[in-house]
Amino acid sequence: MSKFKNINPTIIVIFGGTGDLAKRKLFPAFQNLYLDGRMSKKFQIIALGRAEKSDEEFRSYVLENLETFSRKKGLSDPETQKFLSHITYQSLDIDKEESYQRLNEKINGIDQAFGERANRLFYLSITPSFITTISNNIKKIGLAANAGQDRIIIEKPFGYDKTSAIALNAMLSETFKEEQIYRIDHYLGKETVQNILAFRFGNSMFEPLWSRNFIDFVQITVAEEVGVEERGGFYEGVGALKDMIQNHLLQILCMTAMEAPASLEADDIRNRKADVLKSIRRIKPDEVDHYIVRGQYDAGIVKGKPVPGYRQDKGIAPDSNTETYVAMKIYLDNWRWQGIPFYLRTGKRMEEKQSSIIIQFKPVPHSAFSYGKEGMTPNRLIINIQPAMDIKLQFMTKKPGLSLSLRPAEMIFDYFSCSTMSPEAYETLIADALAGDPTLFMRWDQVEQAWDAIDTIQQVWKTTAPTNFPNYKAGSWGPEEADELLARQGHAWIPNTQTKEEVLNDTDIQ
Amino acid sequence: MSKFKNINPTIIVIFGGTGDLAKRKLFPAFQNLYLDGRMSKKFQIIALGRAEKSDEEFRSYVLENLETFSRKKGLSDPETQKFLSHITYQSLDIDKEESYQRLNEKINGIDQAFGERANRLFYLSITPSFITTISNNIKKIGLAANAGQDRIIIEKPFGYDKTSAIALNAMLSETFKEEQIYRIDHYLGKETVQNILAFRFGNSMFEPLWSRNFIDFVQITVAEEVGVEERGGFYEGVGALKDMIQNHLLQILCMTAMEAPASLEADDIRNRKADVLKSIRRIKPDEVDHYIVRGQYDAGIVKGKPVPGYRQDKGIAPDSNTETYVAMKIYLDNWRWQGIPFYLRTGKRMEEKQSSIIIQFKPVPHSAFSYGKEGMTPNRLIINIQPAMDIKLQFMTKKPGLSLSLRPAEMIFDYFSCSTMSPEAYETLIADALAGDPTLFMRWDQVEQAWDAIDTIQQVWKTTAPTNFPNYKAGSWGPEEADELLARQGHAWIPNTQTKEEVLNDTDIQ
Repeated sequence: MSKFKNINPTIIVIFGGTGDLAKRKLFPAFQNLYLDGRMSKKFQIIALGRAEKSDEEFRSYVLENLETFSRKKGLSDPETQKFLSHITYQSLDIDKEESYQRLNEKINGIDQAFGERANRLFYLSITPSFITTISNNIKKIGLAANAGQDRIIIEKPFGYDKTSAIALNAMLSETFKEEQIYRIDHYLGKETVQNILAFRFGNSMFEPLWSRNFIDFVQITVAEEVGVEERGGFYEGVGALKDMIQNHLLQILCMTAMEAPASLEADDIRNRKADVLKSIRRIKPDEVDHYIVRGQYDAGIVKGKPVPGYRQDKGIAPDSNTETYVAMKIYLDNWRWQGIPFYLRTGKRMEEKQSSIIIQFKPVPHSAFSYGKEGMTPNRLIINIQPAMDIKLQFMTKKPGLSLSLRPAEMIFDYFSCSTMSPEAYETLIADALAGDPTLFMRWDQVEQAWDAIDTIQQVWKTTAPTNFPNYKAGSWGPEEADELLARQGHAWIPNTQTKEEVLNDTDIQ
Repeated sequence: MSKFKNINPTIIVIFGGTGDLAKRKLFPAFQNLYLDGRMSKKFQIIALGRAEKSDEEFRSYVLENLETFSRKKGLSDPETQKFLSHITYQSLDIDKEESYQRLNEKINGIDQAFGERANRLFYLSITPSFITTISNNIKKIGLAANAGQDRIIIEKPFGYDKTSAIALNAMLSETFKEEQIYRIDHYLGKETVQNILAFRFGNSMFEPLWSRNFIDFVQITVAEEVGVEERGGFYEGVGALKDMIQNHLLQILCMTAMEAPASLEADDIRNRKADVLKSIRRIKPDEVDHYIVRGQYDAGIVKGKPVPGYRQDKGIAPDSNTETYVAMKIYLDNWRWQGIPFYLRTGKRMEEKQSSIIIQFKPVPHSAFSYGKEGMTPNRLIINIQPAMDIKLQFMTKKPGLSLSLRPAEMIFDYFSCSTMSPEAYETLIADALAGDPTLFMRWDQVEQAWDAIDTIQQVWKTTAPTNFPNYKAGSWGPEEADELLARQGHAWIPNTQTKEEVLNDTDIQ
C-alpha cells in the first residue's frame, strides 16, 4: 500500500469534463477513491468544457451521474457532498490561449489556498485531434512546468498508425518527458487482467507448463454484443484492428506470454511486455490473408433482439469497408513460444459479451484410457476477464462407475465471489497516476511496437477492399473464414459460455 | 464395459457368511451388482457359517441387513426378493472334511441346475488363521480344480510379517495359481483412489510437475475417529503399522508415485506399483526412531464425546504397547523422487476422519509480490479420498484492490457431486473378481515388498518397548513427535479440514 501513502496535493484538470467518459468513469472513479480515503486531503478537480456552467450546475450534473454510474451506495451522504465541493468547472475554448491563461490563474489560486505548489494531473478525455493544440498551450503557458510533479493522461488511440504515433509522441515530448506521459489502456486496470501476473508469477506450478513444451495454442477473445452505438462517426475511420487489437488484445497477449519480470517495478514489467511485442512475427504483405481475417456484421439477432447491419448503423457509410471483426494468428519468435499459435479475435455484435484467455495444453503423450461419449478433452486453463471473472481448469477424471473410463470435469475459482467490491479499472489507473506509478500504463516503445506489429495489415487493407462485406451475421461468432483460419491447423475456437452477469454496468468505453 | 459382458455363471462361496464383513459389505455389494444387471444370469451365493440355519432364516437376516447397509433404496421390491432367492446357507465346521464334501455336493447340484460347470469364487471372510485349513480342504476335495474358472478372494492381513506371508503364499500356491488369488485391499476399490490414476495419466498438465523438480513433499493421511471398537482382541496383535501402513497407505503411495503404465492391463499397472515398493528406501535398525513415530491414544474427547484410552478399551491389555498411530517419512530411491519426503500417517481416535493425499509444490523461485496477512502459501494439490471426495488446487491470486498483493485461493472439483451414486469399493472389487480382472488386487510381489519395507520397523519395535505410551490424546492429531518428524525438515502437517459428510455409512472394515 505504500505507494498510496503521502500522495501529494494534486490539481486534476479534465479536458472533456462534460464528456461521456468523464460522466461514466472518471467522476465515479474519483468519488470512489475519495470515499476510500485514497485522495490527498488537498485536491481539486477542474472540469473543462465548451459550455458556460456554474460550479453548482456542474456539481449537480456530476451528482446525478454518480447515482447512475458509481458503484458506491448512499450517494446523498455528507461525504459525497464533500467530494463535490472539490470540483470546479471552467469553460474552455480549446484553441484560445486566454482560456489556458484563465486555467493557469485558477490553478495558481488553488496552489495559494493549499499553501504549496500542488501536482498537476491533466486528463485528456477528448478527440485525439485536439491533443496537439492542448499540449502546445500547456507548454506555452507553462502549466506543466515541473517534470517531477506534473503528469498527463492520454486516452487511446495514440495515433492511427506507426508514423502518426511517432509524430504525436515527438510533439508531446516537446512538453512532457516520457515519465510524465500516462498512456491509458483501461484493460490493464481490470482486476482480472492484473491477476494474470499474480497467477503466473505468484505460483510455482503453472510457470513450468507455460511454454511450447506443454501448450498447444492460446486463444484470446474480446467479444462485444454491442454495435457501434453512438460512436459510428468515430468508428468509421478506425475499425476493430486499431480500436481493439492494437491495444487491448496485444496487451493481454503480453500479459499471457511475457517472461517473469525481475521485480514489479514499472520498467521491469514493461520491458518484459515490450519483449513480447518485439517478438511478434512480422508478416509480409502477401501473407496478410493467410494470418488475418476481417469481418463486418450484417443484420441479425443479438440476445433475441433484431439489430441492423453495420452499414445501416447511424453515421456509417452504406458502402463502408470498416472492419468490425478481426481474427488473427500470431507467432512469437522467441524461445518460449516458437511454433505455438496465439489466436486473437475481437468483434462487435457477437453472440455474447466475453473477454477471455484460453490456454489449451497438448494432448497426453500416450493414453490408455477409454472415454465416455463426451470423448477426450485436452486440458485447458480458461481465464475469464469479463463479464465472468473466474479461472477454470478443465481436465479429465474417472467416470464414476465400475469401469476405468474418463470424462471431462472442471475446477473453478471465482475471482469475483471472493472479492469485496473490486475497484473499477479507472479507479486503479487513476490511483496509480496520482501516485506516480506508471506500471499499468503503456510506455512509448510498447505503443510503437504494437503499431509496428499491425502496420503491414493496415497498409494491405487500405489498398485491397474486402469483397465479401458484410460477412457475418450480428449475433454470431464472426465470419466462417475465422473458423477456417484455425481449422487449417487442426484447431477450433473453443466454446466458453459466460455464466456470470456483470455486477456493474460496465459499459466498456473503448 | 466389455470386461463385464458375458460373465460366466458363478457360484460364490462365502466363508464367514454370517460375519460382520458379509453383513455390512458383501451382501450389499452383490445385491447392488445384481440390481444393476452386473451379475451373470446364472449365479448362486452359498453362505457358510458355524450355526445351523435354514435358507429362509438366513435370507431374512440378509434382507434385514440390506435395509441398514445397502445404498439402494426400495429393498422390498421384487428384484431384491429375486436376488435373495440366489442365496443359500450351509453350516460348515471348518476343520471337518465332511463339511467340504457337503459343500461339494451342493456346488455340483448347482452346476447341474445351470446345465454347465460354473466358475467358483471363494470369498475368505474369516480370521487369517483359518486360511490354511480351508485351502487344504479345497485342494483335497478338488473344489477349485479349474484354474481358468476358479478364484479365491483373501482379505488382509496377508501374513503378519514377510516370513509368514511367504509361508502363507507357498501354502496357497499348492492349491491356487497366482492368477487365481485375489488379495483384496478395499482402498483400491474406492472411486477416489482409482481416480488418482485417471487424474495423473488422463491429463497432460499434471505429469510434467509430478517429480522432485517441482514437488516439495507429499503427505498421505488415513485418520480414523473410531477406536478399536469391537475389534480389540484382533487389533492387539496387529497395530497400525500392519493394519494400515503395510497395505492402505503403501498402496496409496504407489498410486501417487508410480510411473505411467504402458497400458491399463493388470500387470502393467501392478508392475509400476511394485517398482514403487521396491524403491522405498530400506532403513537400518538404528534409523527406525529417526524415520518413524509410533503412538497410542490416551483418554480424550472425539467430536465432543469423552472416550477412554486404548488401554482401557475392551479386550486390550492394561499395559498394551500396541501402536494405534504411525507417522513415517519415506524416501523413494529412484530418478523421479530422489530426495523428496513422503510423509505417511495413520491413527485411530484422531480429531477427524480423513483420507487424503496432499502434494505440496516448491515455493516460487523468485517472488516479487507482497502478501496479505495470510502470507505466502505454497501451491498445493489436495486429493481427498474420504469422507470428502474432492480435488482442491490451492494457489495464490491477486487480492482485489488497488495494490498488486497476493492472497491464497483455491479451486475445487467435487468428485462426488458430479457422480450419480458411486459404487462402493466392494462392488467394484467383486465385479472385477467375477470378471477375472485382478488390476485392483495385490499381486504377491507387491505384498512381499510391502512387508519387506516395514520388516525392520517391526523387528525393532518388538525388542524395544515404547516408554511413553499413551502419548497422544484421543481427539488430537497424534503425538508431538510426529510434528517434530516434519519440523526437522522445515515441514509441517497441513491442516485439511473435511467439509463433506459421507453420504453412506461407510464404516470402513479394515
